[in-house]
Amino acid sequence: MAARTALVVSAHSADFVWRCGGAIALHAQKGVAVTVVCLSYGERGESAKLWKQDGMTLEKVKAGRRLEAENAAKALGVHDIQFFDCGDYPLELDREQRFRLVDVIRKVQPDFMLSHSLEDPYNTDHPYATRVALECRMVAQAWGHNPGEKVLGAPQLYLFEPHQTEQCNWKPDTILDITDVWDRKKAAIECMEGQQHLWDYYTNVAQNRANQFRRNSGGQAGGREAKYAEAFQSIFPRTVDEL
Amino acid sequence: MAARTALVVSAHSADFVWRCGGAIALHAQKGVAVTVVCLSYGERGESAKLWKQDGMTLEKVKAGRRLEAENAAKALGVHDIQFFDCGDYPLELDREQRFRLVDVIRKVQPDFMLSHSLEDPYNTDHPYATRVALECRMVAQAWGHNPGEKVLGAPQLYLFEPHQTEQCNWKPDTILDITDVWDRKKAAIECMEGQQHLWDYYTNVAQNRANQFRRNSGGQAGGREAKYAEAFQSIFPRTVDEL
Amino acid sequence: MAARTALVVSAHSADFVWRCGGAIALHAQKGVAVTVVCLSYGERGESAKLWKQDGMTLEKVKAGRRLEAENAAKALGVHDIQFFDCGDYPLELDREQRFRLVDVIRKVQPDFMLSHSLEDPYNTDHPYATRVALECRMVAQAWGHNPGEKVLGAPQLYLFEPHQTEQCNWKPDTILDITDVWDRKKAAIECMEGQQHLWDYYTNVAQNRANQFRRNSGGQAGGREAKYAEAFQSIFPRTVDEL
Amino acid sequence: MAARTALVVSAHSADFVWRCGGAIALHAQKGVAVTVVCLSYGERGESAKLWKQDGMTLEKVKAGRRLEAENAAKALGVHDIQFFDCGDYPLELDREQRFRLVDVIRKVQPDFMLSHSLEDPYNTDHPYATRVALECRMVAQAWGHNPGEKVLGAPQLYLFEPHQTEQCNWKPDTILDITDVWDRKKAAIECMEGQQHLWDYYTNVAQNRANQFRRNSGGQAGGREAKYAEAFQSIFPRTVDEL
Amino acid sequence: MAARTALVVSAHSADFVWRCGGAIALHAQKGVAVTVVCLSYGERGESAKLWKQDGMTLEKVKAGRRLEAENAAKALGVHDIQFFDCGDYPLELDREQRFRLVDVIRKVQPDFMLSHSLEDPYNTDHPYATRVALECRMVAQAWGHNPGEKVLGAPQLYLFEPHQTEQCNWKPDTILDITDVWDRKKAAIECMEGQQHLWDYYTNVAQNRANQFRRNSGGQAGGREAKYAEAFQSIFPRTVDEL
Amino acid sequence: MAARTALVVSAHSADFVWRCGGAIALHAQKGVAVTVVCLSYGERGESAKLWKQDGMTLEKVKAGRRLEAENAAKALGVHDIQFFDCGDYPLELDREQRFRLVDVIRKVQPDFMLSHSLEDPYNTDHPYATRVALECRMVAQAWGHNPGEKVLGAPQLYLFEPHQTEQCNWKPDTILDITDVWDRKKAAIECMEGQQHLWDYYTNVAQNRANQFRRNSGGQAGGREAKYAEAFQSIFPRTVDEL
Repeated sequence: MAARTALVVSAHSADFVWRCGGAIALHAQKGVAVTVVCLSYGERGESAKLWKQDGMTLEKVKAGRRLEAENAAKALGVHDIQFFDCGDYPLELDREQRFRLVDVIRKVQPDFMLSHSLEDPYNTDHPYATRVALECRMVAQAWGHNPGEKVLGAPQLYLFEPHQTEQCNWKPDTILDITDVWDRKKAAIECMEGQQHLWDYYTNVAQNRANQFRRNSGGQAGGREAKYAEAFQSIFPRTVDEL
Repeated sequence: MAARTALVVSAHSADFVWRCGGAIALHAQKGVAVTVVCLSYGERGESAKLWKQDGMTLEKVKAGRRLEAENAAKALGVHDIQFFDCGDYPLELDREQRFRLVDVIRKVQPDFMLSHSLEDPYNTDHPYATRVALECRMVAQAWGHNPGEKVLGAPQLYLFEPHQTEQCNWKPDTILDITDVWDRKKAAIECMEGQQHLWDYYTNVAQNRANQFRRNSGGQAGGREAKYAEAFQSIFPRTVDEL
Repeated sequence: MAARTALVVSAHSADFVWRCGGAIALHAQKGVAVTVVCLSYGERGESAKLWKQDGMTLEKVKAGRRLEAENAAKALGVHDIQFFDCGDYPLELDREQRFRLVDVIRKVQPDFMLSHSLEDPYNTDHPYATRVALECRMVAQAWGHNPGEKVLGAPQLYLFEPHQTEQCNWKPDTILDITDVWDRKKAAIECMEGQQHLWDYYTNVAQNRANQFRRNSGGQAGGREAKYAEAFQSIFPRTVDEL
Repeated sequence: MAARTALVVSAHSADFVWRCGGAIALHAQKGVAVTVVCLSYGERGESAKLWKQDGMTLEKVKAGRRLEAENAAKALGVHDIQFFDCGDYPLELDREQRFRLVDVIRKVQPDFMLSHSLEDPYNTDHPYATRVALECRMVAQAWGHNPGEKVLGAPQLYLFEPHQTEQCNWKPDTILDITDVWDRKKAAIECMEGQQHLWDYYTNVAQNRANQFRRNSGGQAGGREAKYAEAFQSIFPRTVDEL
Repeated sequence: MAARTALVVSAHSADFVWRCGGAIALHAQKGVAVTVVCLSYGERGESAKLWKQDGMTLEKVKAGRRLEAENAAKALGVHDIQFFDCGDYPLELDREQRFRLVDVIRKVQPDFMLSHSLEDPYNTDHPYATRVALECRMVAQAWGHNPGEKVLGAPQLYLFEPHQTEQCNWKPDTILDITDVWDRKKAAIECMEGQQHLWDYYTNVAQNRANQFRRNSGGQAGGREAKYAEAFQSIFPRTVDEL
Repeated sequence: MAARTALVVSAHSADFVWRCGGAIALHAQKGVAVTVVCLSYGERGESAKLWKQDGMTLEKVKAGRRLEAENAAKALGVHDIQFFDCGDYPLELDREQRFRLVDVIRKVQPDFMLSHSLEDPYNTDHPYATRVALECRMVAQAWGHNPGEKVLGAPQLYLFEPHQTEQCNWKPDTILDITDVWDRKKAAIECMEGQQHLWDYYTNVAQNRANQFRRNSGGQAGGREAKYAEAFQSIFPRTVDEL
């Protein structure tokens, strides 16, 4: 059996860390080759701390953000990280850029994909990235797109956790125990020096999702003692051989 | 490891056949002990064909429905079928009857449960049964209910497919391949002599859910060739070790 | 062909006037025999003006409310109005009272039914009445309920307009032109002396629903010049021979 | 009175067959002139079988798909079929192409329109086509668009059935009996040689929607014996003279 | 403390009058500087009356609409009204036009913003304007957009009332008493000579929202005697010091 | 002006601490007299730790839970705490018990009320309590209920935060800064010795809601430096004099 693979489509270069760093590290540890595509660096909209420094330029911000993301990817055991540099706030991909993502999808042939919530009134780049992911997944399945290439099957698309879940109408159906790799996610989070105000936030999120993991795996009558967890919403139904 | 168990809460005595007969047969075949609780016989509301016969009485209808259900249960490999005889149209359980269901839940200690959709404007007994199932699941988890008994963990509650899915706001997230046990489900369906108008309906449903299984497991690029399937909606998030 | 019939299930004795008086008058004029069941008089919760009078008693309030409702029914051309006197705030029907409603449904054999919205945070009696209407419609369809009686077919249940539509998650799909019978609805409204604060409100509603009728029937390119209208939400799909 | 007309906006050249072929044939038989606009041939994304043949080219696929669609249209009695050839996977219309659709809408002056569901995570072309249909309907109503032309009234937009209804949050409110024209729809379906895996699927759908037609038109107490049906969701409220 | 400011993003040049004229006048009276941006004149789609005149041209329509809007703005006490002239039916803003809106937002630094509902099947320009408003609000918050400029805080975005609220899935959470400034809103409405068919409609709306204001502020037990009101839906949670 | 008052309807005796202890302490500090009604002690379902002790009885559990709740109430500055002792898992109130709650509501005349989310698949007691609160609020408004008593106005009903917000379809619209009283909430939490597994959980919740408070009050461009917060969903629209 071929090695398993996964693909993360991240609107900005730090999103994959906060929202699914544990899933990445956990699967990497299991031998899954995880590719991360950062559609932008988040250079305009998510780099306030850098912009407050004197003499900052767009190129310096991008370089700084890229370095942080590469370091975080290394900490998580990411197989490959690609920067599409499409610009942010707003993020927009032309057809060529979207077909570049199709190329990546086909090359990776992911067993599952990860991206943002379907809605986010605070950040229109996030649901835009998800719409792009869904469209490119569809194009990658098309036998008439670059005929002769291996077409894509039907990988699940997991939506990772947005900042304010309820405002984004995001509802998780899957909770993943990331206790074993928490130290790696923590290390990756700490690569994001520009956004220290979020470190504690996502640590709290991980602890509380673990509490929910315990409750949903049996509670006081046998629940698993998870310490850190991440939650996801699935877009497509699962196809299974047993319940 | 203890044998796996499952529990079906069926509003009327035929519901478990149409809606999850395949899941029952498949898990029975895998060694899962499946208990079915029929809260009523559907004697008033789902036995039109019997009532059109001369000299029919409520007791005769119930006996006939019970026999059909027992035969179907046998065909599916059900471990235990219990008839609560709470009456139908409308179905109503007093506290004692609900605690009887709690007793069954605790005795079975199901790894997962199955019941109806959360809404059904055509049939108010169906969502009522689901509300009862949720309430009794909660009571079975309570350390103060019959203290000393083994309390329940946190089994998933799967909602099986209602007759008109969209009108019931039912949205499946899990599709189960039942091809291997279709002959058993078919045999069980054919025990339901009073409702022949539904035989073809649920055969069509099983074939079309299999088409969706194929599509969601890879489509023309590697989807599994399922011939019959059943679909379910989960109430609770899954707790997993990998995506 | 038998005469057409309709049945309104009204939680309190004035609801049928504000919310579907036009529909009643219009169909009465077309020869449809409309039966109205008032589950309560609204004697406790919707009779503030009466209770502000000296020496008022529950019986006097009920008598006054009944008279108003009877007068309004006459103005609208109601075929039969029945008062179940189940009490209000909160409205609750025991099984016997619900089976009384089943009896009425079976006797009337309505071509369509009318009741309240499915939700109403201001007034829990309203959605309760609708749940009762749905349950009793189901029981009236059961061949095993009073076997030998003519069972009910599948009449549409239209939900009439609640006071604050958006708060009740009520969404109309049908707008009825009541221009021809507005004078009758107005006369019926003016029978409700205890609730004058609502007269203008429902006149405004009727005018604005007519504006929407115009727009949805063609707008400035041929829309019908309705002056007064009522709007309804359907519970069940329509079965049609053409679109 | 002028002859009635209808307009179908189909994302790919086969959609109109599976999803509303019965409605087309039925109305054609009643004298309604039905125009079909195929925004693309589905040449890239819905022609897997053709692409698996040796030496296939985009032009050959398009020609083949066009021929199939024309044959199906003939079988259904379509008045006029137009191919916009906008490309698929992804489907995108520039302003000129959208105004071409406005021109068709104005020329046809449809009494009702048909298009796809509002959502479809499997196929982003489908909801895109619906958004285009809604936008172009609006532009066709604008007195300032090509002043002097006859502006559009307010035709209903019916959403036809997507492949996996629940995943698309599509909820039908109208079921159409197509028994009389089933042979035509079957003939049209069989023109779609490239997608034989869907023939049985949509036959099953038609039979099951007919079962629902029977139930919603009266069930065992007088329901119509429809054998095949199609279901639709309406976007706009109906304006009626009676319920 | 700096003077308070507000910003209205109006798809067409009359929308701000019908939908939030009262809010504008009320806040203007309180010293809030309200800026209105009209993204288009509504020259193609909302000027039927003008287009029915002989010899009408696009430029004349735009000039007429502009004059009406300026007069209405004056009547309401608008601080600044800007016309972006982006065209309507359909409304589309390129990146440059959107950044022009960002510039306005940054310059105004609004304490709150107002725009259209998130959905509107009748008028795709309206939700488009809201999406633009949300995107531009986000860009205005980005430290990397025109670095050195004062970035935006987190103003509430209120969605004002669409024509057919339920069809737009718009649900108000805030009702504003505009009784004191009703004469100003009425004067502004009467500037809209081209759309007299809406004058009564929005007067009725204002009266009925006032009835709801009375009910939600205490009803017959102390509700405020508002005579005219406007309703709004908030996008973001409020941050408060007391409930 | 009369002193302000508030009323909390808590299904079990600890709910008010986790979910709105900050709101209670904050308003108590402002001079608002807060009454808490505990419908049950949570003696059966939420006292696992006690039941694991030898020789435990229902009465001992209730006494222990009552003491904890009284201590917590003291720590928060609750004005009055009442225990209805209706039993839990399941919680059920007969009419007399509900009218007892109506009596409390009328006596308190709350400016606002607090209760649970509208849905909770884990705990059916919680939404049951909210339905009771809504029904009793309505009865308290009825002029015909105990005529002569002062009827209730229209207090807001805030829904406090459930354990797993997204699974309960709970969406907050109001975030309250409780930084100033966090020490009191912490003290109250620490009275709940039987549920230590929740202490950290709700501390994390409070910190993360504070992060959201900062973001929604201005973020990096002026947001308030809240350290602890609580979030609430409103049932009714607010009636305001300015936006």
